[in-house]
Amino acid sequence: MAKKRVYFFGGGKAEGSAKMKELLGGKGANLAEMTNLGVPVPAGFTIATSVCGEYYDAKGKWPKGLEEEVKKNIAKLEKAMGAKFGDHDKPLLVSVRSGAAVSMPGMMDTVLNLGLNDTVVDGIIQKTGNARFAYDIYRRFIDMFGDVVMGCHHENFEEAIHTAKEKAGVKNDNELSADQLKAVVEQYKAIYKKHVGKNFPEDAWTQLKHSINAVFGSWNSPRAIKYRQLNEIKGLLGTAVNVQAMVFGNMGEDCGTGVCFTRNPSTGEKEFYGEFLMNAQGEDVVAGIRTPIPLKELNKVMPKCYKQLTSLMIRLEKHYTDMQDMEFTIQQSKLYILQTRTGKRTAAAAVKIAVDMLKEKLITNEKAVMRVEPAQLDRLLHPSFDPKAQRDVMAKGLPASPGAAVGQVVFDAETAEQWRDEGKKVILVRIETSPEDIGGMDAAQGILTARGGMTSHAAVVARGMGKCCVAGVDDLGINYKNKQMKVANLTISEGDWISLDGTSGEVMKGQVPTVEPKLAGDFGKFMMICDKIRKIGVRTNADTPGDSRRARDFGAEGIGLCRTEHMFFEGDRIWAVREMILASDDYADMLDKLAATENQNTIKQIESEYTSVKTQFEGALNKLLPYQRDDFEGIFKAMAGLPVTIRLLDPPLHEFLPHDEKSQAEMAARLNVETKIVKDKVDQLHEFNPMLGHRGCRLAITYPAIYRMQARAIIEAALKISKSGKKVLPEIMIPLIGSVKELKIVKDQVIEEIKAVFAEKKSKIKYMIGTMIEVPRAALTADEVATEAEFFSFGTNDLTQMTMGFSRDDAGKFLGEYVKQGIYEVDPFQALDQDGVGKLVEMGIRLGRSTRNNLKVGICGEHGGEPSSVDFCHCVGMNYVSCSPFRVPIARLAAAQAVIRNDRSEKKTRQKSKK
Amino acid sequence: MAKKRVYFFGGGKAEGSAKMKELLGGKGANLAEMTNLGVPVPAGFTIATSVCGEYYDAKGKWPKGLEEEVKKNIAKLEKAMGAKFGDHDKPLLVSVRSGAAVSMPGMMDTVLNLGLNDTVVDGIIQKTGNARFAYDIYRRFIDMFGDVVMGCHHENFEEAIHTAKEKAGVKNDNELSADQLKAVVEQYKAIYKKHVGKNFPEDAWTQLKHSINAVFGSWNSPRAIKYRQLNEIKGLLGTAVNVQAMVFGNMGEDCGTGVCFTRNPSTGEKEFYGEFLMNAQGEDVVAGIRTPIPLKELNKVMPKCYKQLTSLMIRLEKHYTDMQDMEFTIQQSKLYILQTRTGKRTAAAAVKIAVDMLKEKLITNEKAVMRVEPAQLDRLLHPSFDPKAQRDVMAKGLPASPGAAVGQVVFDAETAEQWRDEGKKVILVRIETSPEDIGGMDAAQGILTARGGMTSHAAVVARGMGKCCVAGVDDLGINYKNKQMKVANLTISEGDWISLDGTSGEVMKGQVPTVEPKLAGDFGKFMMICDKIRKIGVRTNADTPGDSRRARDFGAEGIGLCRTEHMFFEGDRIWAVREMILASDDYADMLDKLAATENQNTIKQIESEYTSVKTQFEGALNKLLPYQRDDFEGIFKAMAGLPVTIRLLDPPLHEFLPHDEKSQAEMAARLNVETKIVKDKVDQLHEFNPMLGHRGCRLAITYPAIYRMQARAIIEAALKISKSGKKVLPEIMIPLIGSVKELKIVKDQVIEEIKAVFAEKKSKIKYMIGTMIEVPRAALTADEVATEAEFFSFGTNDLTQMTMGFSRDDAGKFLGEYVKQGIYEVDPFQALDQDGVGKLVEMGIRLGRSTRNNLKVGICGEHGGEPSSVDFCHCVGMNYVSCSPFRVPIARLAAAQAVIRNDRSEKKTRQKSKK
Repeated sequence: MAKKRVYFFGGGKAEGSAKMKELLGGKGANLAEMTNLGVPVPAGFTIATSVCGEYYDAKGKWPKGLEEEVKKNIAKLEKAMGAKFGDHDKPLLVSVRSGAAVSMPGMMDTVLNLGLNDTVVDGIIQKTGNARFAYDIYRRFIDMFGDVVMGCHHENFEEAIHTAKEKAGVKNDNELSADQLKAVVEQYKAIYKKHVGKNFPEDAWTQLKHSINAVFGSWNSPRAIKYRQLNEIKGLLGTAVNVQAMVFGNMGEDCGTGVCFTRNPSTGEKEFYGEFLMNAQGEDVVAGIRTPIPLKELNKVMPKCYKQLTSLMIRLEKHYTDMQDMEFTIQQSKLYILQTRTGKRTAAAAVKIAVDMLKEKLITNEKAVMRVEPAQLDRLLHPSFDPKAQRDVMAKGLPASPGAAVGQVVFDAETAEQWRDEGKKVILVRIETSPEDIGGMDAAQGILTARGGMTSHAAVVARGMGKCCVAGVDDLGINYKNKQMKVANLTISEGDWISLDGTSGEVMKGQVPTVEPKLAGDFGKFMMICDKIRKIGVRTNADTPGDSRRARDFGAEGIGLCRTEHMFFEGDRIWAVREMILASDDYADMLDKLAATENQNTIKQIESEYTSVKTQFEGALNKLLPYQRDDFEGIFKAMAGLPVTIRLLDPPLHEFLPHDEKSQAEMAARLNVETKIVKDKVDQLHEFNPMLGHRGCRLAITYPAIYRMQARAIIEAALKISKSGKKVLPEIMIPLIGSVKELKIVKDQVIEEIKAVFAEKKSKIKYMIGTMIEVPRAALTADEVATEAEFFSFGTNDLTQMTMGFSRDDAGKFLGEYVKQGIYEVDPFQALDQDGVGKLVEMGIRLGRSTRNNLKVGICGEHGGEPSSVDFCHCVGMNYVSCSPFRVPIARLAAAQAVIRNDRSEKKTRQKSKK
Repeated sequence: MAKKRVYFFGGGKAEGSAKMKELLGGKGANLAEMTNLGVPVPAGFTIATSVCGEYYDAKGKWPKGLEEEVKKNIAKLEKAMGAKFGDHDKPLLVSVRSGAAVSMPGMMDTVLNLGLNDTVVDGIIQKTGNARFAYDIYRRFIDMFGDVVMGCHHENFEEAIHTAKEKAGVKNDNELSADQLKAVVEQYKAIYKKHVGKNFPEDAWTQLKHSINAVFGSWNSPRAIKYRQLNEIKGLLGTAVNVQAMVFGNMGEDCGTGVCFTRNPSTGEKEFYGEFLMNAQGEDVVAGIRTPIPLKELNKVMPKCYKQLTSLMIRLEKHYTDMQDMEFTIQQSKLYILQTRTGKRTAAAAVKIAVDMLKEKLITNEKAVMRVEPAQLDRLLHPSFDPKAQRDVMAKGLPASPGAAVGQVVFDAETAEQWRDEGKKVILVRIETSPEDIGGMDAAQGILTARGGMTSHAAVVARGMGKCCVAGVDDLGINYKNKQMKVANLTISEGDWISLDGTSGEVMKGQVPTVEPKLAGDFGKFMMICDKIRKIGVRTNADTPGDSRRARDFGAEGIGLCRTEHMFFEGDRIWAVREMILASDDYADMLDKLAATENQNTIKQIESEYTSVKTQFEGALNKLLPYQRDDFEGIFKAMAGLPVTIRLLDPPLHEFLPHDEKSQAEMAARLNVETKIVKDKVDQLHEFNPMLGHRGCRLAITYPAIYRMQARAIIEAALKISKSGKKVLPEIMIPLIGSVKELKIVKDQVIEEIKAVFAEKKSKIKYMIGTMIEVPRAALTADEVATEAEFFSFGTNDLTQMTMGFSRDDAGKFLGEYVKQGIYEVDPFQALDQDGVGKLVEMGIRLGRSTRNNLKVGICGEHGGEPSSVDFCHCVGMNYVSCSPFRVPIARLAAAQAVIRNDRSEKKTRQKSKK
């Protein structure tokens, strides 16, 4: 028996099926599947992918028997469609498309209307009485065939029609008359001949043979080869060629074309949704020249077709068990389905459809969970711009924190707070933000920065606040002095209105109208399904009772990271902090001097000075104690019954000092010292690379009293709240650990203080002490570190910075280029770099559990809310992820998907290994 | 048979030996060994370490039979010494000392002169006629016994003698008369009684028993326990107790005491060397009240003793096969050796002695190599201060680069160069140095900085230049404006003379005289022995032909790191560099704009602008090309036949721009642009963490032309020198790689340029392309990186910074505290952190060779010249280490020692595993 190379579909039966994807390609298999389902698909045939290989083996010749087989299938097609290739009265026109087993850019585009020639055009004119239409599709076919099949660039044809339009004094193609188009057809033929060197082929078979060869040729186009290399697509046979009869919705008033969805893609409502146009082509629906008619109207115009269509919609949705997006054409009262595919939908619709289909028992819990893109959820939680509103985009930056913000521009935090107090809505614009700007950021509707990436200070804080932020808009020329910013030729001054889209990164002039989010009841149901499936916990990064409550509402199961430094800035506290910093220095100096001398008198003298400075230092710290205790009480209350991980002070001390001269003078006046002393302290604390400087637990090595104060505040607050009957689960986290000895020293200080509090209060409470793993050395020596740490929390922001050697504040200058050139697929501050940083994380967990097998492990970097990173955290066996409040639902969904995805692939692997 | 607990030594025979260290402790075993060798050691006995355990098991009671055995040994001792415990005429006095198998602080100090009481003192006075001496040793004994044995603090006694001296109107103890001392003795007894609650025991046996118990008790002193914990000393039985007869060199004119060396410890000459005092105690020799007499004079005074001593010296040196440092006492014409140990020696002596002993066949090659401390060698290569000179030390910093420098203080690089040109010797003093200071550093005798650690810019460059540098002198208050620095109350102004000791870190006022180094012929011989043994290569870090030649003289086998950035600063080149940087910006901007648009007109316009800016950018680069080519030619010539690893540009571009306003204005004028443009560029290039910023290969990703220019310069130079008949082995090193894709992109650029040069010159040469491994991610993914890299060079400076999260420019503020608290044993920038960073290095090598098994691996961080790090590099299988020229001999020696040390321990491990 001869080898079968061509597979027919049509008339309710197909030789192929959905299972034959490898041989028929994705498109061919789908067309066969629909045909077998009884869907009225225009008939056609598919040349198998294996033929592509034969074609290459034979150096561009058709294998013996192929021509015969193709011709036999054309005959079948002619019969099925009641038409004939090249026939004047009943011409058969076809489309030719490529289609491999895997969707792949770089391969040949569609050739439509193949089979047209002068004779056929004449027949069409006679049949439709529409010469304009006939010449238009003819000239388009010549263009397409010339461009896609014969390599005569589209631009050449475009020039000709441009000239024709100028000559005719019209603007649009569709304003050209039939005669004018007829002339264009002749010009196109001439252009074709000039570039191809031959006459345009009138013979339909020649047209088809060239087109099939072009499809085969496109399999090895440089772009397709590159794509397969990059995506490591191997073992494919080649591309299939799909030849399918053309149908027309614009042949008369018994014709039409439209698009329909089996459910409403905007809201998720279960209803027949879509729109159509009578006597029109598919592109007319899209082009918007005529206003399409709602699908339901079709029931009035062509009730039989409508009935047939809706019953097909129901059948196809059931078959594919997902909302379908279909294209249909009615040719002379006969309905054809041209395409069906899973429809795109809004976040709200995705959730509703998943929950509804589950209710309808159409899909399982697992399928429902996989039906929503985690990143989509974000849109449900923030206000968004009215999609219908006009946008005057002036610049684009990084979508650092989602949401929509509209406000008047201010350039400093102070003005932001002032204007907010005056009832104004403001957008805070800074070159970059620093902890000093917190108040202003809080006061603003949104934050816009010229520098910094997805994990810059502005981005991290904004996400924590659930506040819209666009960061790293390189094009912004900000001038603080003039209170202006420039983008290209546009100047925006203080007080001007702008709008920020934190989801797209767009910055717009003026006030773009917004719509508030509505969390449907389905959202809650959907999240519950996720929670049932997921195995990894989801906590939040929250620094305030407000954030804690919001996160808890979003489903957070505790706090994974409560930063304490923000608390140091609020209100009057900063003054106590600054007082402490001024005293910190001599304190350390004296200890050194004390260690150096053996003279008893000197010792006594230093000791007395030391006591005085120490008193001052600890006095300032003691002023902070009640504030901190209050902070923790509020958070413990909000998180009653759930664990709260508190990170002790992390940033270098210089972050708490003012850096401009005016503020330094103010500080000096307020603390009653000379300005020079403040300046000197700022200079003394200056660091070349603060990211790698004197911060985190290193502060506790030189100034033990700071962490002691914080430990005391935590435990005093915990005892108090616990006494009120609420369960408190404090987890004290020591940051920036690099060695177990370092952890032991700091932990011992903290425990000593806690024991003192227990003794004073004659009361105890359970607590844990653990560490952040953010310095590579801590991950490398995690087996040692775990002997002292009761839990690990991977601080993947800093871990990424140190492992990859990127400063997140500076990397914006080159990271874009890195992603563009494919060195890193995504910004490693957005999605965890699993190959590099992930290796350290895995090693850290494995080593840590080798010496403490019940070690609790979490992640508290920004990656904790990013879906691919959550998947990774699940796979490496973390106990929980922690992320900003607004990302909690995303993480819950991503965690559930991780279970489904990996359990599946686990099963697959298991099956494979059984073979 | 009863268990033997006490081991006697004396009269030429000992019951123990050197082999019984575990049972007798180190000291006891040594005393036994010397006795067995026939060395006239004062007799005595050792209570075994096992007894200490029995003592604890019995809760502080002596095991049955011990008292009897000790008494028996005392009788033996009395017989051997011809004296008797407590006897008036011939009293036996003993010392009691602890001594475990491992030397250990925290255990009991010596008790001397035990056996003294009122009767014995009287006898001594009668015998010596020296009442002052008798009462002095008596009161010292009461003090020592009270303090060390009975816990009555030394301070109590000190107060009494202080009062006595005041009363007598004298300053020193030795000015008190016999009667006054006698009164002190009575007071001491009263103090003893007051604090101990009992009379001072007159009975020698009671004294002894208490002392033995005190030794046992000190085994479990908190400090001793802590020491064993920290050093993981386990399995020891306890401490031994050594009881030994006292001998006196101050009993009359037939007595004396001295110190001798079997060779000259200063020069290494083979001669009897030492000094002594007649009728004196050991401490008198040290105290310097009387001037000691050269040892050879003893031949005149007591020829018999001299002859006996010198023959003992010869014997002991032969026995211990090393130069001995001995203490001797002559008591009434009888010579006693109190101690012999391996003598300390200068670097020059160490080398000479090792070479001489090898010649004498006293030791093997391996032993000779182990006899010199690598760090010592440094002193042989630099001038040093005359050890006899007076030093007026005003401050102390880090010994950043060894040597001795004397010069007049200047505070800026420009003045340094000016004054040097005027023939002055200058010391460049800076808060910290930056690449702009290179010229001034080169002009200076030495460099002094207030900030920065052992691997700060100043330190690294100074070591590279072989120039003395003291860094990080925190106490310095430098005022650039006034051209002054302050230390405590001292003010040093520009032009004042100071002296720097780069080996000790001392800064001295005025001009301290220096002596030039003399490399003896033995040095060369010694190094040859090292080279024969070592397995790992030693290259140098050198950036100039001069450094290259010097390093080659010191034995470097190639260049492991040639930094190219210093070349960018010299002379006029900096102007071309700055021109390039000004053009760099638009260049990148335009590429972005080009990518963003599809409008043909815009594209054409941008392309034309782009071409013009690109021309400017590459024009500036082309100005640099001949300079770079010349640099490489010089280096290739100097290193003919040896490999030269050239690192392409590493620092961020902002390092090449001036940072003060005046220089910015100058730059603007010279490059004919507005000052604002320069300022804006500086602002734009500013980085928060430059260490993790836009540098290294990241420059090549955004500005490919820079590395292309460098690759061209390297290959053009190589072809030229190679044509002249000299062998050139260029190895091009790409810095800061974090991913294999990044390396591939940059490598492809470089190769393309090299191929272009080959084509132009119609000539080829072999070359290699490799990478630095300095970003943790590169080590973690070394298997991938090695598929593109032909060699790895570990940049452990940056690798340490990133792995430990320390900025080397800032860590000075807390790293001292870290080392002090034992978190890290040494500064990790001085000695490689083997537990953390080393793990990454090991992993990098293992992974790298897993995909490229002939991968050449080296190290080019500062650690390459540090002995413990060289040992590590040997153990992990590197092919070579690379270090600054002056460290090359150190690395050669350390590499040889690594072979000997690890081959030994390897053998041991093998033996163990056989068991």
